[in-house]
Amino acid sequence: MPEALRVGVAGLGTVGASVVRILERQKTSLAERCGRPVAVTAVSSRDRSRERGIDLSPYEWFDDPVALATSSAIDVFVELIGGAGGPALEAVESALAAGKPVVTANKALLAAHGARLARTVEDKGVTLSFEAAVAGGIPIVKTLREALAGNTVTRVSGILNGTCNYILSRMELEGLTFADCLADAQRLGYAEADPTFDVGGFDTAHKLAILTSLAFGSEIDADAIYVEGIASITPLDLRMADELGYRIKLLGVAERTAHGGIEQRVHPTMVPKAWPIAQVMGVTNAVNVMADAVGELTLVGPGAGGDATASSVVSDLADLARGDIVAPFGRAAHYLERPEKAPMQRHEGGYYVRLAVLDRPGAAAAIATRMAEQQISLESIVQRRTGVTRDTDPAGRSGRSVPVVLITYATTEAAIRAALDAVLADGHIAEPPQVIRIERD
Amino acid sequence: MPEALRVGVAGLGTVGASVVRILERQKTSLAERCGRPVAVTAVSSRDRSRERGIDLSPYEWFDDPVALATSSAIDVFVELIGGAGGPALEAVESALAAGKPVVTANKALLAAHGARLARTVEDKGVTLSFEAAVAGGIPIVKTLREALAGNTVTRVSGILNGTCNYILSRMELEGLTFADCLADAQRLGYAEADPTFDVGGFDTAHKLAILTSLAFGSEIDADAIYVEGIASITPLDLRMADELGYRIKLLGVAERTAHGGIEQRVHPTMVPKAWPIAQVMGVTNAVNVMADAVGELTLVGPGAGGDATASSVVSDLADLARGDIVAPFGRAAHYLERPEKAPMQRHEGGYYVRLAVLDRPGAAAAIATRMAEQQISLESIVQRRTGVTRDTDPAGRSGRSVPVVLITYATTEAAIRAALDAVLADGHIAEPPQVIRIERD
Repeated sequence: MPEALRVGVAGLGTVGASVVRILERQKTSLAERCGRPVAVTAVSSRDRSRERGIDLSPYEWFDDPVALATSSAIDVFVELIGGAGGPALEAVESALAAGKPVVTANKALLAAHGARLARTVEDKGVTLSFEAAVAGGIPIVKTLREALAGNTVTRVSGILNGTCNYILSRMELEGLTFADCLADAQRLGYAEADPTFDVGGFDTAHKLAILTSLAFGSEIDADAIYVEGIASITPLDLRMADELGYRIKLLGVAERTAHGGIEQRVHPTMVPKAWPIAQVMGVTNAVNVMADAVGELTLVGPGAGGDATASSVVSDLADLARGDIVAPFGRAAHYLERPEKAPMQRHEGGYYVRLAVLDRPGAAAAIATRMAEQQISLESIVQRRTGVTRDTDPAGRSGRSVPVVLITYATTEAAIRAALDAVLADGHIAEPPQVIRIERD
Repeated sequence: MPEALRVGVAGLGTVGASVVRILERQKTSLAERCGRPVAVTAVSSRDRSRERGIDLSPYEWFDDPVALATSSAIDVFVELIGGAGGPALEAVESALAAGKPVVTANKALLAAHGARLARTVEDKGVTLSFEAAVAGGIPIVKTLREALAGNTVTRVSGILNGTCNYILSRMELEGLTFADCLADAQRLGYAEADPTFDVGGFDTAHKLAILTSLAFGSEIDADAIYVEGIASITPLDLRMADELGYRIKLLGVAERTAHGGIEQRVHPTMVPKAWPIAQVMGVTNAVNVMADAVGELTLVGPGAGGDATASSVVSDLADLARGDIVAPFGRAAHYLERPEKAPMQRHEGGYYVRLAVLDRPGAAAAIATRMAEQQISLESIVQRRTGVTRDTDPAGRSGRSVPVVLITYATTEAAIRAALDAVLADGHIAEPPQVIRIERD
């Protein structure tokens, strides 16, 4: 049998330790699958003595991940350190410069430096693999990069952050507030002490940036993403969505617009309950792809967790061991397009608008007029006087305003914003409007 | 740029014509992705003059697919002729013997000859790819063969036949009978004039045989599959399933049993409504994989259709063009296990049993006794006297029997069969019992 692929793992947290365990446990199977062994030969981490449930004695130890990255003891460098810059970036760049292929789970690093790294990979004739960087154990990178090679993708969207989906699922099923669910998620280890990165939508945006590049053959551009988190979603919004036949999910969406640009956006989204993606509850992730030949494809699975993420890292290592060479973003870096950014103001779609309307004569007529001025047609108007006012008026003016929900037909973000600015200026609403975009057929 | 991968396509039906169209349409993109062009150079079909919406003049024409398979004009042979033997088999064998890689969508051929063909592939140092043979456009072959390389799969299951899922979905949503839905499916082109192959479960069995080999690293063994179709499912069964929190789907299921064998079975199955696979309606397919590292993964997409199936054929061609070499069933043929077949009699699970119980004293007690004799515990018993007898007594003895539904806790197929044989012999039921297996957590 040919020589082993010698693997160096930098970062021995949950995922790193699991990679080491899986490569040991699946030793025979991987050798059969790849035609050669895949074996860890060296590791690096901050703390050598920490208990990880694995025996590190067979592996050469490096205190410095950069030294590991360029060591002659390894054929491939696995970066599981994390962070968009710092030692992770330095180690990845060093490995590539030394002509070593890199496998990483680091979405932040790819979102920030992916385009440049893809060019380095090409110059050096090596590979950069990152199945684990998006949606944990779901093989969406391989699907977009290889399985859909014969397709023109028109849209890719997904539930890419388990923390947010867990919070929204519990809010919906148990009628809890965002703050209560977040506290629970933190207790259960599903959310960080500083949850901004997750609940603010930034983690989803990093993953979406990678998916966009793979799906559209474009240079990664995380700065072009419109990002909104889930902190403003209330139990009332979830109840109204339910009544109207929708669920609210934090989606990352990238699509080719009629103008030829690519729209990338992350925000709470109302999706029809019958859509596969609407059924995905809890920490589970899902990715939906629309493409010309295949039509619609949905992948559902674990978005995080040591073993699930390690499963994707090992998949990349097996491909490398087998000698499968594929460009990081599906095609050589110089082919990657730099498409026009489609600004959010031009986004077209339906909108859910919840207004805390002050209970005085003429308010409804004034609001309707402001919508009409922007050519916005309303599909439905729902007004409830009872039982819900406490949700809408945290300022203590309970009873003085009533929640009114408007569902619009397709319009533009610019039109909605202009109409609502006018409504707010008119002084008929007690608080800034809640706006949730709707996706539908 | 290196030389083109020259593709010969045999069989120009819906899928074949679509492959030709996609390779033309995606010419530039495929060359960028693969580092070389992928181009049809020769084709073969029964009827040269048929209108297919494609211009065949650029391609060399072969009346005989075997001549195409061995022609020096092609580097890879695409078999889209169909059929387990005949010209499809002869052409595939000829291509492999001539050292040419083969791409096929032919599940019947693989189910019958896959094990032998895998050995030929190995001897000849070529490849055999068949993403299109299972679940149309869903990349489940690539997922099992490559993405889950670091996993031990414990169970693979799926909705693998769009015709059956369409019929069951309409029966459920509209309360129609099997016969009415089948007739509609035939009118709409979703079912063949002779529907046995689809509704009898045999098409699902062919696909399951392939998934089993990929998932468990075992030699393909379609004869080991227990097969039951959907013709016996009644609207009453679907209503009862709904009341009990289940949907009825025709599933193919392969799992490693506690005894170390592999159980392969195709039958109507009651699945909890909350499971992702239960949400899949109409002609859509879905595959669910349980594995030690990744946990649970579900892929949902089109199981048929020219473009979706062609998308999978083109994916295989792109891999070949890129030089990715992978053994047909994930590892070299001599590593494929021949596991013990787990006979259906040993299957363990819950059961739904619907009995047309004759309305006479002592019947219920006698049935309960027969179940107890086989150590079968009942989770629930549902008896309805009104409005449903017409479903249960097609012999015209309407009103003389009442439908009684039993839901069992986990038991064995052998125990259920023994108990029901005794119940039937006792003469307390008006017709053979309806038995539907239940899958649950």
